Amino acid sequence: MPDTSFILISPQQMQERFASILLNAGFTKEQANQCASIFTANSVDGIYTHGVNRFPRFVQYIKDGYVLPGAVPTLTNKLGGMEQWDGNLGPGPLNAVHATETVMRLAQQYGIGCVALANTNHWMRGGTYGWQAAKAGLVFIGFTNTTAIMPAWGAIDPRLGNNPLVIALPYQDEAIVLDMAMSQFSYGAMELAVLKNESLRVYGGYNKSGELTNDPATILESKRPLPVGYWKGAGLSLLLDILATVLSGGLSVHQITKKDVEHGLSQVFIAIDISKLGNHSLITKTVENIIADYHQSVGADASKKIVYPGEGVLQTRKNNLANGIPVLKKVWDEILVL
Amino acid sequence: MPDTSFILISPQQMQERFASILLNAGFTKEQANQCASIFTANSVDGIYTHGVNRFPRFVQYIKDGYVLPGAVPTLTNKLGGMEQWDGNLGPGPLNAVHATETVMRLAQQYGIGCVALANTNHWMRGGTYGWQAAKAGLVFIGFTNTTAIMPAWGAIDPRLGNNPLVIALPYQDEAIVLDMAMSQFSYGAMELAVLKNESLRVYGGYNKSGELTNDPATILESKRPLPVGYWKGAGLSLLLDILATVLSGGLSVHQITKKDVEHGLSQVFIAIDISKLGNHSLITKTVENIIADYHQSVGADASKKIVYPGEGVLQTRKNNLANGIPVLKKVWDEILVL
Repeated sequence: MPDTSFILISPQQMQERFASILLNAGFTKEQANQCASIFTANSVDGIYTHGVNRFPRFVQYIKDGYVLPGAVPTLTNKLGGMEQWDGNLGPGPLNAVHATETVMRLAQQYGIGCVALANTNHWMRGGTYGWQAAKAGLVFIGFTNTTAIMPAWGAIDPRLGNNPLVIALPYQDEAIVLDMAMSQFSYGAMELAVLKNESLRVYGGYNKSGELTNDPATILESKRPLPVGYWKGAGLSLLLDILATVLSGGLSVHQITKKDVEHGLSQVFIAIDISKLGNHSLITKTVENIIADYHQSVGADASKKIVYPGEGVLQTRKNNLANGIPVLKKVWDEILVL
Repeated sequence: MPDTSFILISPQQMQERFASILLNAGFTKEQANQCASIFTANSVDGIYTHGVNRFPRFVQYIKDGYVLPGAVPTLTNKLGGMEQWDGNLGPGPLNAVHATETVMRLAQQYGIGCVALANTNHWMRGGTYGWQAAKAGLVFIGFTNTTAIMPAWGAIDPRLGNNPLVIALPYQDEAIVLDMAMSQFSYGAMELAVLKNESLRVYGGYNKSGELTNDPATILESKRPLPVGYWKGAGLSLLLDILATVLSGGLSVHQITKKDVEHGLSQVFIAIDISKLGNHSLITKTVENIIADYHQSVGADASKKIVYPGEGVLQTRKNNLANGIPVLKKVWDEILVL
């Protein structure tokens, strides 16, 4: 039985530990602090898979030369509100924050902007950039490609990426942030379910005989996780990859899949400046009215609140800021010796 | 048993019949021809639900005053590549073609453009506008809101729209066009399955006891169709409605749902001019390489070809252009007396 005990780490302690490790790995002080802040914030928000749990692998990719700590993105092409950038294989989260800052400026100038980023690396939690733009008052649409993790619809061999799609907008003092990958369950979620000896709550893929199943071990073996909405999510995954590749001039899923590890990704960042689309308080009221109607939903289970995408994060964030971030002891032990 | 016999109608015959009816209903000759062409093309492509089968209801909405035949969209706000238009409750397909033409011009000028359209009507087949932009060489992302047809995730009362999302781009001489609604199966598809006494091929919703089912009659009764990818598609539906409403300044799903019939919709059209993003033949080759890899997929059923979104349409189009469009006799009889 693996050690599944947790310890509580304060956000400040985590941030300092991460920054110190990244400084040693060749980051500048500013880069190290910014990158450490992103990994810490993702952990504070409860997205441990793309926060603290992923940090050791991120450091390993730097050591192995897949992620280049000194690299910064460079502009390769500009056409009004549309810009192409080369990520130069720099740290994914730093490249993505830079792309988001850039696309926000484009949106402020042109109403709508698009930054397509080639040769970048895993951005960790896509929602990070949705929160970034939405907290600054903008609408955000973004997506990334990944290595192949699931088959095309009707097929059995993995050719499609998980290609998360992020849509975000400001809401009151916070944001509404949708961050959805194209598989119904991530490999991480299925591995965790196996560890906990749990079934998936809905079908998550096919077994080797082509039958739908909610047994995570079976799906990990068949490598046939379900796309969201079956043929629909499979189609959406393909289109997001084609767009990311064509717009950035970077690599597509089938090219990334041939590499030793997942790196050299293509990403798209779109922002729209809603501050000039009308009276600010009117726009706020419009969204409040939609959410008010949504919250009037009659729950199938009266004890469960109906929440909008990003709403659940607020409580987790509050808890983790107050009490510390729950971290698997074996993960933190690993980080302490990095 | 309802009459389910078909007759074959030539595209020219259908187009002329539709145009003549629309002329009588108050359309100008140009409007009538354009609108008739869209309904005919949707039928040629096999999207009968948003072509010939829907035409009688479209005419009824004109007669009832929900769709105003003389109305054309007017510009209400312009910020560089971002424009807001009022559809003035004109015919949805004509407003959407106009918005697509407008956003293509914006993209050609600014690299990326966005048109948000308030107070419009059902655009019929969203793919129409994806094909329009993609055949002209542009990338297209568009979505519309609708009346509420499914519950929020965890709820039992309908609050979310079907809110189709369209993504398209040029491919060789044709296009790759994804046109996906947010429910796993449309009400139309479920009604057809009931008529044919067929089960849905995967779960399509919940029965009144909250159990997943693939019996379409049960879902029509419970009014709880499944969102694509369960909680994920429910979230995406909500976000698309909020974006359409905020960007256009128009009505949201909860406001549209209060009306007698579905009208006064909000829509978003985004286009990106890829012609200046690099060598045309290089971009074409990039997409061909992705599709070539996709087509190498190993099918679960070796007799079934793995197709990309929009690929199946090409064969249907060819067949219907050559042999005529198969139309339910009872539908054509209805059209003959309009």
